[in-house]
Parts: sequence; C-alpha cells; structure tokens
Amino acid sequence: MPGIQLGSGVQRLRPEPQEELPAQENLLLAAAYVSDAQYNRNVPFQTSPQAIRLYCFYNHWTMRVATYIFICVDLSLALFEEPALFPLPFVATALAEVLCLAAFSARLVHFAKVTPQMVFWKDTKNICIMVTIVVTLIDLIIYGSLEAVHIHSIRWTRALRPVFLINFPESRQIRRAFRSIRNTLPDILYVFLLFLFSVLMFSLMALKLFGDRGLKTADGAPYFTNILEIAFELYVLVTTANNPDIMMPAYNVSWWYSLYFITYIIINTYIFMSVFLAVVYNNYRKHLKNEIRKLAYLKRHKMIQAFNILKVKVGTEFVVKEAAWKQLAKVVTPDISSSHLELLLRISDEGQQGYVDKMNFLRLADLLNIQVVTINLRRHPLEAWVPRVYQSSMSLLVQRMVQHRIFVWAYDVIILINAICIALDEKHPFISYAEWLFLALYIIEILLKLYTYEPRAYLGRKQFWNWFDVLIIIAALVATMANAAIQSARKYNSRQILDIVLILRILRLLRVIISIERFRVIVTTLINIGPTMLTFGGLVFVVYYTFAVIGMEMFHGKVQFFDPNFTSPDALVCGNPALKGSAFARDRYCKNNFNDLASSFVVLMELTVVNQWHVLAGGFALVTHQAAKLYFILFHIVVVILIVNIFIAFILEAFFVAYSLGKSEIETAIEKKIQELGVGIQEEDVQDWKLTGNIGTVDSTFSGNDGDNRGKALKGLYFRIASKKYRTVDALLQRMFESEIAPNDEGPSLEEILNFSPSDIYPKNPNFDNSA
Amino acid sequence: MPGIQLGSGVQRLRPEPQEELPAQENLLLAAAYVSDAQYNRNVPFQTSPQAIRLYCFYNHWTMRVATYIFICVDLSLALFEEPALFPLPFVATALAEVLCLAAFSARLVHFAKVTPQMVFWKDTKNICIMVTIVVTLIDLIIYGSLEAVHIHSIRWTRALRPVFLINFPESRQIRRAFRSIRNTLPDILYVFLLFLFSVLMFSLMALKLFGDRGLKTADGAPYFTNILEIAFELYVLVTTANNPDIMMPAYNVSWWYSLYFITYIIINTYIFMSVFLAVVYNNYRKHLKNEIRKLAYLKRHKMIQAFNILKVKVGTEFVVKEAAWKQLAKVVTPDISSSHLELLLRISDEGQQGYVDKMNFLRLADLLNIQVVTINLRRHPLEAWVPRVYQSSMSLLVQRMVQHRIFVWAYDVIILINAICIALDEKHPFISYAEWLFLALYIIEILLKLYTYEPRAYLGRKQFWNWFDVLIIIAALVATMANAAIQSARKYNSRQILDIVLILRILRLLRVIISIERFRVIVTTLINIGPTMLTFGGLVFVVYYTFAVIGMEMFHGKVQFFDPNFTSPDALVCGNPALKGSAFARDRYCKNNFNDLASSFVVLMELTVVNQWHVLAGGFALVTHQAAKLYFILFHIVVVILIVNIFIAFILEAFFVAYSLGKSEIETAIEKKIQELGVGIQEEDVQDWKLTGNIGTVDSTFSGNDGDNRGKALKGLYFRIASKKYRTVDALLQRMFESEIAPNDEGPSLEEILNFSPSDIYPKNPNFDNSA
Repeated sequence: MPGIQLGSGVQRLRPEPQEELPAQENLLLAAAYVSDAQYNRNVPFQTSPQAIRLYCFYNHWTMRVATYIFICVDLSLALFEEPALFPLPFVATALAEVLCLAAFSARLVHFAKVTPQMVFWKDTKNICIMVTIVVTLIDLIIYGSLEAVHIHSIRWTRALRPVFLINFPESRQIRRAFRSIRNTLPDILYVFLLFLFSVLMFSLMALKLFGDRGLKTADGAPYFTNILEIAFELYVLVTTANNPDIMMPAYNVSWWYSLYFITYIIINTYIFMSVFLAVVYNNYRKHLKNEIRKLAYLKRHKMIQAFNILKVKVGTEFVVKEAAWKQLAKVVTPDISSSHLELLLRISDEGQQGYVDKMNFLRLADLLNIQVVTINLRRHPLEAWVPRVYQSSMSLLVQRMVQHRIFVWAYDVIILINAICIALDEKHPFISYAEWLFLALYIIEILLKLYTYEPRAYLGRKQFWNWFDVLIIIAALVATMANAAIQSARKYNSRQILDIVLILRILRLLRVIISIERFRVIVTTLINIGPTMLTFGGLVFVVYYTFAVIGMEMFHGKVQFFDPNFTSPDALVCGNPALKGSAFARDRYCKNNFNDLASSFVVLMELTVVNQWHVLAGGFALVTHQAAKLYFILFHIVVVILIVNIFIAFILEAFFVAYSLGKSEIETAIEKKIQELGVGIQEEDVQDWKLTGNIGTVDSTFSGNDGDNRGKALKGLYFRIASKKYRTVDALLQRMFESEIAPNDEGPSLEEILNFSPSDIYPKNPNFDNSA
Repeated sequence: MPGIQLGSGVQRLRPEPQEELPAQENLLLAAAYVSDAQYNRNVPFQTSPQAIRLYCFYNHWTMRVATYIFICVDLSLALFEEPALFPLPFVATALAEVLCLAAFSARLVHFAKVTPQMVFWKDTKNICIMVTIVVTLIDLIIYGSLEAVHIHSIRWTRALRPVFLINFPESRQIRRAFRSIRNTLPDILYVFLLFLFSVLMFSLMALKLFGDRGLKTADGAPYFTNILEIAFELYVLVTTANNPDIMMPAYNVSWWYSLYFITYIIINTYIFMSVFLAVVYNNYRKHLKNEIRKLAYLKRHKMIQAFNILKVKVGTEFVVKEAAWKQLAKVVTPDISSSHLELLLRISDEGQQGYVDKMNFLRLADLLNIQVVTINLRRHPLEAWVPRVYQSSMSLLVQRMVQHRIFVWAYDVIILINAICIALDEKHPFISYAEWLFLALYIIEILLKLYTYEPRAYLGRKQFWNWFDVLIIIAALVATMANAAIQSARKYNSRQILDIVLILRILRLLRVIISIERFRVIVTTLINIGPTMLTFGGLVFVVYYTFAVIGMEMFHGKVQFFDPNFTSPDALVCGNPALKGSAFARDRYCKNNFNDLASSFVVLMELTVVNQWHVLAGGFALVTHQAAKLYFILFHIVVVILIVNIFIAFILEAFFVAYSLGKSEIETAIEKKIQELGVGIQEEDVQDWKLTGNIGTVDSTFSGNDGDNRGKALKGLYFRIASKKYRTVDALLQRMFESEIAPNDEGPSLEEILNFSPSDIYPKNPNFDNSA
C-alpha cells in the first residue's frame, strides 16, 4: 500500500528530537503536512527536501490557476472547431490543443516527481490523463493528415476533453460526485432492469390490447402497432412528456382502457422513479459520510506526522517548542499577522509554558482554518475629520433616523411604488421621469447609510446585501445614463443597454426580501448552499460537454434555423424535407439544433427539463435514423435519473443538516477556547450591520475582563470566528465528526483509513433515532 | 384533561386485590385495555361495566364493516346524482343519503355513550361529523324544495362527504396523513411566498424584456404582453409543462434570451421544488416519529392499567395469577387455540410459578399481536394414502426432478418462448395452437409441484407467488375456454373476454421475476409497502372526490365528447364554439371533461401527472372564465406540491428503514424467548416452499431439545413468528422504539404523552450518526 510506504518513509527520515530549532528541511516537511491537513489534500508525496520544495511549488496557487486556464482553453476549443460558433482554421485550434496537452503533460510530470513512483502508477487518475493525451494526439494527427488530402473524418477525442477537468487532483468535488454515481450503479441496475421489464410487459400488453383496432392518434398516425415504437412511447410516458395524448385514442374507445394507463403511471412513473431517488439518495448519504470520516482521520494522521517531526521531550511528555511552533505557522501561512499568530499561540499554549503539547498541536490545522477577521473598531472617518459637525445635534438626528425601523419601512414602501411604476406602461413621460426620482432616492439611501455607519463595516467582506445594493444601484446609474446619452445623441434607445437597465431595475425589488426576516433566512440558506451547487454545475457541464460533442458530430447541419419572418416552405420544415408534417416542425423547434456548442447546450437543457423531449428526439430521428432516439434515452437516464436525483439528494441533505443544526449548536474545542479567552465576537453580533454601533460596549467588557499581558497586544482587534457560518454540508459534517473524535484519539492506521467502506458506517443496531 | 379523569376513574373502580378469580367486570375492563393496546386504539372509554360492553360492541368488526359500507354508499352517490354516470331520480339518491346520515348519527351516538362526555365534546372529529350531518340535511331540504318548484340549485355539501371517511376513528392512517399536511403548512408557507415573489419578479422582467417586441407564439398569439398571463405561463413553466415552447419565440430572436429561461428553471423548478420536497419530508419524518412514540407509550400505559386491575400480591411483588391471565387472554381473543394459549403462558410464566409478573404481563399485547402460525408437519396426503406408489423409485425421481434447479430453468425458457409467441402475430394458426400447449405446460407444472410438495404448505397463507401462479393459470384456463366456446358457437371473438385472456397471458410472464433473486427482493419490498400505499390511495381519493364534485358543478356539460368517427364541426370543438382554434380542441381532449364522476377522476389524474395541464386549464377557462384557472392551480398546489411530495417522502422513508433493517436485526424480547424455547421457526426457513421438505429435521431437533412436560402438548405444532415480516414502516418504527423502552419503564404520565411535541424528538446534540 502506498500509504504504508509513505509512513515508513517518514519514520526513516525523522531525526532525533533536538533541543534547538528544527532543521529547515524538517520544518518544511511538517509545514507540508499541516498545509495538507488544512486544505484536506491527500496527495502522498516524497519526503526528500527537494521533493517537498517541488510539492510546495506544485500546490502554489499560480500553478493551479494556470492548469485551470489551460483546461478552460482546451474545453472552449469546441467553440472554434467545426461546427463552430466562431470558426477558426484547423491549424489554429490544433496548435492550441497541442499547447494545452503539453501543459497537462508538464503538470503530470511535475506530479510524478513529487509523488512516489508506486503511488503514481497505481493511480487511475494519472493513467486516464496519460491515455487521453496520447489518444488525442493520435486523433489530431490522423484528422490533420486526412484533412490535408481533403477527406473529412471525425474528431471523436473531443468528447474526452472533460477527462482533464475531472482527473486533475484539484477537482475533488466533481470526482466525488462521479464516484457517487459509479457507486450507485450496481444498486440501481437491478431496479432499472426490473423497470425495463415492466415497460416491456406493458408494451406487449398494449400491442395486444390496442394494436389491431385500427385506432389513430390525433395526428392521424396508426396507434400502438409496432412493439418498438410502443416501448419508446411508454418510456416517454414514464417521463410524463406525452401524457395524456398517448392515452386519448384508447380512452376515446372506452373508459376502461384509462385504467391501463393509470396503472402504468402509478407503477412506473411514481413508484419506480421514487425508488430511483431513494436508491440514489441512500448511496449518496452513505458515501458522503464515509468520505468525510476518511478525510477527518487522514487529517488527524497528517497532523500526528507533523508533530512527530517537530517534537522534543520536556519532562515526561513530547511537546513542540514555542519557537518551532511559530516558525511552522509562519511557513504554512506566510502572510499571517503577528497579532493573529499571538492569538493562536495563546489558544494553543494555554498555561504559557513556552511549548505546545500534542493535543493542542493537533488542532493547528483547524486553528489556521478558522477565518479570523480582525475588526479594528475604528470610528467613522467623518468623526475623526470633522468631529464637531458629525456630533452636532442635526447630524445625530439624521443618524438616529437612519437607524430607525421606520427608515427601512419607508424604503420598502418606495420599492413597492417603484414596482407598480415598472409594471405600468413606461412609455408615459411621467413614469419615465419617476424612474430618475427612484434612482435618486436609492442613491440618497446609500449615502445616508454610509454617513451613519462606518463605511468599512458597512461594506465588510460578508455584508452580501449591502454590496448587492451598492452594485445594483451603481450599475443602474451607469446604464441609465449611458442609455440617456445614446438616446439624446442618436434619438433611439439601444436595445441591449435598455435590457440591462430593465433587469437591474427589477433586481432592485429583491431588496424587499431583506426586510422580512423569514425570507432572508431562506435566501441566506440557499446562498450558503451555492458553492456546493457549483459542483453540480461542474458535473452537469462535463456530461453536457460530452453529449454536446457527440450530438454535434451526429446531428450538425441536419436542422437549419431560418429567420422567423422568412416564411418559405423550406423555413417551415427547418430546411429538411424529412421533417414535413412532424411535431418538431409544427412546434417551430428549428432553433433547437446541434449546429454549434451554444445551441447544443440549450437543447440539452431542454432535454434535462424533460418536457417535449420526445418531440426533439422524434425530429432528430426523422432527419437521421430511428436509432438516434437511443442518444436521447441515454441522455435521459444519465442526466435525469442519475444526476438530477443526486442534485435533489444533495438539496435534501443540505436542508436536513441545516435544520438539525438550527436546533442546537456544535462548537469545536477551539471556538470554546476563543470564547473563553473573551477575544471572540459571535458571528451573529456583527453579521448585521445595524449592530455595528454596539461593538464599542463589547470592547470595554473585553478590556475589563482581560488583565493579561498579551491582552494589550490584541487590543483594538477583534477575532470574528467566520467558521460559524457553515458554507457547505461537507464542512459541517466534517466538523460534526471531528467534534466527536476524542482529542487524543490517534485514529486507525493509514491503511485502515484508506480502506474504509461505506458499509462500516451503517449502525450495527439501527435504533429509533438513526433509523429514519 | 380527559386522560386524567379516565385514570382516576380506574382508580376508583379497581377493587382490592383478590385471591380468587377476578370479577367478570374487572376482567372485561382489563380485556378492553389489552385489546386497545393490541390494536393501538386510543379511545378513552367510560369504565362502568355497561359502557365497557357497549365499547366492545362498538369495536366489533361487524359494526366497523357496516360503517364502512355506509360510507361507501354515501360516497358512491355521486355516481347516480346529476351529472350522473348512471342517472337515478333525486328522490332515490336523497333517500339513500338520509339513510347513510342516520347510520352515521347512530354510530356517533353509540360513540357518545361509550366515551366520557367531556372527551366527546372536545374532540374535533365528532364536531366535524355532526356539523357535516346537519349541514348536509339542510342542503338536501333546500335543494329538494327548490327542485320541486323546478329551480336548479347546487348540492354543494356533496364536496363535504369525504369528511365521514376521514373523521371516523377507524381511518387513523388517512387522518395522520392529513395532519402531516396540516403541520407542514406553516413551514411551507414562507417558502411558497418566496417562490411566488420570485415568479412575479420574473414575470415583470419578462413583460419588460419581451412585451413590446411584437413577438408571436407558434400559434400566432401575442407573446408575453399581459402580466397575469405571463405569471400563469411562468407558473406552468415551473411544472415544466410548457417547456420549451414558452422559450422559443424569445430564443428565436436571440440566443442570450435563453439564459433568462435557464435561470428561471434552475431557481424555480429545480431549487424551489426540491426545497418543497425537503420541507415536506422533514415534517413527515418528524411527525411520524412523534406519533409512534406517542402510540408506544399509550400502549404501555394501557397495559399498566390492565395490570393494576388484575394484580394480586404474592410475596413482595404484585403479579397476575395464571387462571386470571388465561381468562383474560380468552376474553381478548375468543378464538385462540389451547396450544397457542399454552405457548403464550409458557413464554410469560417462565419459571412455571403459577403467576405472571408485571414485566411479562406488559408484553401480553405484543404476544397476542405476534401472528403465530401453527404448522402441522403433516406428510404429503398421497404418502399417507398410497405410500408405496408415492415412495416408489419412479415417483421419487419425479420429485427430485421437480425440486431440481433445472426444472425452474426449463420453465423460465418456456416462459421466454411464450413471450416471443405472444409478441408474434397470433393470427397464424400455429401460434394460436401453441397457446394451448403453453397453458397445458403450466398446468402440468402446477400439478407436479402439488405432487412433490405438501399442498397445504405450497398454498400456504404467505406463499404469494404460488397463489399468483395458480390463480393466473386457472383464470387463463377459464377465460380461454370461455372464449373458445363463444367462438365455436357464434363464430366471433368476444372482445372483452379476449382482452382478459390477453392480459392474463402476459401477466404469466411476470413469473420470470421469481426466478431472479434480486428481482424478487425488490418486488417483495414493494409488495410489503403496498398496504401503507393504500393510505395514500385513501388520501388521494378524498382530495380527488372533493375536487371532482366542485369540478362537476363548475364545468359539467361545457365540453361534450362525440364519437371519434363523427367529424361534424361541432365534434371538432367538443360541442362548444368557444374552443375553436384552442390547443384543447386541437389535441382532441374532448373526453377530458367533468361530465360524470369517472371522467372527472381521469381528468384529475391527468392533472396530477402534470403534463399538458395548462392545455386542460386553458380549455376549461375558455368555456367558462379565466378565473377557472385558479381551480387548476389550487389542484396543482394541493396534489402535486403537497401530496405527491408526501408520497415520495413515504417511499424514501420506507426504503431507508428497510435498508437499515436489511443490515441487522431487531428482535423483541418475545421473539428471543420463543427462539430460546425452541418452538419457533425462523420466517426465512419456511418462507420459501422449496425448503418445506427440510422441516422434518427441525422437528426432530426440537423434540430432542425439549424434554419439558408441556413440550408434548405442543408437539407437532410450529410457531412461525409472522411479525418478522414488517408490513409497514410504522410497525417497524414502533417495534424499534418499543425495543428501546426498558421493560420496566412505565413511561411518562398520560398527560405528558398526549402533549408530546415533534420538536422534543429532535436530538438535542446532533451528531454524525443522526444528522444525515
């Protein structure tokens, strides 16, 4: 096992504990472990000093950003290759692709230098990337030489490009989502087979019941006469897309036949689809927990390794000296402020004995992860510059007015009036002028708030809604003025700018939500889930990209879009006579085609939403071959049955975790310590800018309580524990799990950790609490 | 509180412990408590001997069946009233309704006699029923007298009829589902308001972006010009029913406008709809657990009351004498066999001391609930009648052959060939004859199995698949012969019988599932969930009925269905000129109308499936008023957002509980005891009839182990613990919870139990296990 090898490597390398400062190499090695623990990186690396330096460089943000840029370039090549949105010659795209492949190879070589050879070659990620690079190069050469002699072939490796996005160690989240899908497959397979069996049974029944009656659909086509067509129609019925049209011919004959369709829908649409969701959700939950347990133990394991490197013996126990600890923290986070470092030391070395014991040392990664925001309790700049004016009774009255609830209500009323004005016809000059008035009112509001509250607090890093306000208003101001300028200069409205102005004007109404507490809570929860939802964005993008490239190769140019005003017979059948009389042409779906990447993505989005997907499938089957429907069925299975269900599972899970947290609190030991020391401010206290004015009182309490020498160094600084806001379900679950591991529990061995299986995690004796 | 009053009533009534048999009244009272505990009934009843007899009569199955028959009659009246499927004169239906109301009143009076006055008048169920009865009578009189003078009015109280189904104490499951919905409402309300706000914001944006461009839909109608129409269209888009048609006009203008619709779908369809599911699921889970905890404690409470009535003092502890215990058990279950009673006593009175202690007494309800199936290990009847023939080498060979795996495989192959024959054209005479061959083969299979296995074991109560086989084959045989007889007599096929033959022939193919273990497991799980799914059937029926009655009053006769072959212009617009050119008429939806109860139910089913619901809504709005769309929106909110989500939550929950159980076992103390005594047979041992032959060995082991005197009385009998098969999630959860209450835990007081709140149940400190 790679892990064991790595562990023994450390054993070999670790020197005897020294009384003095640790050697630079040891410090670097320990820093690498701590940094990995901090960011949950799990790359086994070689422990020679040179390898460690290379490893640090490998993890440097510039290298990661560069990799992502190359991935983006590589993926975006599909925009410029035939069928292109912006056509470029083949030579240009080929060159760009070779450049990207070179960059990926370099990154891979770098990684190979860092990690032990055994580990490198056993990792499927690396093999995948290498194979893809080689295959892509071969494909490029073949395609290029055929193109040179004017034979058109297919660039099929373009569908493999998302491999780079998935397999680089940085995109762990997307990989986990894929792993989750892969793990679900065996469980879902039998349900799916049973479901297919059920569809086939019903198809056979439909053929026998309705096939020889000579019924016609509303289009006049024969009804249920071919077993393959019936199976497809019934599969579509599972997605509900052709209900109730598929039933009507039989239902028109007799009421009793509706029972056949109702039974079918209950069994296949409701029960089977719910079982799919249940299987996906169950697996998602199981594997999520397993991975989090793994991450938590790996983190602990790395911290123990770092401790073993730096430990010295004091009395009976091994500890890390204060100087070594400080050096380590500085190597891990070079831009840490000295007051922040001081705070961390104070938490870790409680008794001020000049060293940090093992238990406290293991916390270092968590400590560094706590976003400590130093709040300088500064006064309002105006108070400093013109204290007399700012403290005058007139000024104080304005400030009190702005802080008053009625001020908020007044602006809510203004927003509502604004909404009504927008809904009314804006051609009327009065309303057009009113828009300027509203803009002025909003600007005044922001200026008044900036006058009343400390500007840096008002526009603090976490003040989402304040930023939203300010940016929307500034953008609206700029866009409105630009529009007015163009209008007065050229006497017509620029449609694009006008659209932007309209959207900004309506987005402003969102502010009403802030005023209603319950709404704000829901929106804040949704915004917090946001970052993890981007993982699904990545997942969906990867699948879409692959399907889009395949779709473009299969269907491009088969369906043409003509301007809606162009009513030639050709335009009515999307330029393809095969579509004559089809539902695709009748519904005017000509622009739903695979003629470029952007259009393909829109078609795939429509397929994801499911409705009318059979019309799209039918249309593309008509212009190519009936087998083309398989492409659409496959897309439905992958995206709707698997990915959308995982998305729903994720939302459910996020919601439940958030709910169970809402009822109570999980506080890690560190947070308790910070609270005990009295230098922390509860997130809630400063979350709302309205309370910023009260911080002064907290400050005085703190100074009074804290008679410590170091207290002075911290004076004027506040440590806001940002981790109270759980950004993701993962982070929250990991915190939960870590708070349950005993502080001195060293966890299982590395090998055991790597072999954790989700089935271990299931409670041996299900009880009433955890069963449901 | 009624509970306390009841409790003190018992205190007053209980006599001093007697050495002899308890008085008949005490026995009856105790039996009533035990019986209530056994069936989880929670009706506080008066404790006078007369009231107890009345209460037993109230609970008698004939009374309950009679009530259900009256409810069915009352509900089915809608079939005979205008607009009727089978018209009856008003006098007839009115008389039937009065009869039903009289029966409901009598049942209510009976209940009032049984339960304390205070409790009766505080129970909203009873008030509901009384109000509904009175209101229905008033409505009947008004309608009748207006009808007499030929003024047509509306029988609006028909929509209230489901109240009887919901509110009679017997339909606890449906009530719980409704309670679950009601409890969810406050939580869902804010999310729903936010969702509406979002829809309105997007509507405003759509009006401004697309309203003044003069765009046309595929039908040539103006596109996005009226804010109310936009809001409706966008609500429909949330249900995905008009995607991508709603997007196409804007998308045809510019690719960028697709982003508007994609954003809308992501936010409103995916995120909001998932949040609705999460809220509903969370509430469902919470309240389910609370109710189960309540039930478990109430059961324990009743058993303690029963014990207190019968207890006598022996030595230092209170116990129940063996004779009293036996009498009690006989009163509770009059048809208990003596060997069964003996077994229960042996479990309860372990040391054979002649009395049952408190801990064992409290288990009585559970003991009686265990379905003990006595298996008489009889030989095959043929072995008894003609032992020589049955034991002959030829006969043994046949038996071994039938038991062999190849026999099963051979029949699987036959089924597959049969499937292919069915799929082929049956007009061919060869295939028509093949059908007789297959039928013969299946009959031979069943006869062989009956020859090999003990017939009563083969067709045991739980042998679902064997029964399925036999019934399908017999039905197919009868129907095929009937069809052949009709055909030879009258020279034509009866279409109805042929349909039935076809369906039976195809259902036979289902047997392939039995052969594949994984499929059988899934199907068995789904069948086990079945009974609880019927609760949802009840819930959906109640909602459908109310909506159907309202819909019939609003829309009946507005849309007419003409025979499909009748192509007059009237038939094309469903007999209503207002539908000319509408999507409703174009899609030939004329039979989707509210002209009778059966048609209304089909329409509501289509609305539940959601697809094309806007076409139906649009059609009925055209023939009445645009406000009619509100009816359809309300139906969508109630059925799709609430009920379907609860259904999904239920399937998820059932699946998770089944899964967590699959990994381990929950064995109650009683089951352990039965296993220890060695008189139980694991369900799995006999589940599969293939194993029936092995029971002989188990038998000998049992006889060997059990040298007890009583063992002889039990000889030849087997007790199968049927409760191992968990029929419902509820039952399973209740078992889980009960297995966690300590055997001597008396639980909280009755008042506390009745005031349990779901928020208590949430873990105070969420941990890694129960959080997700």
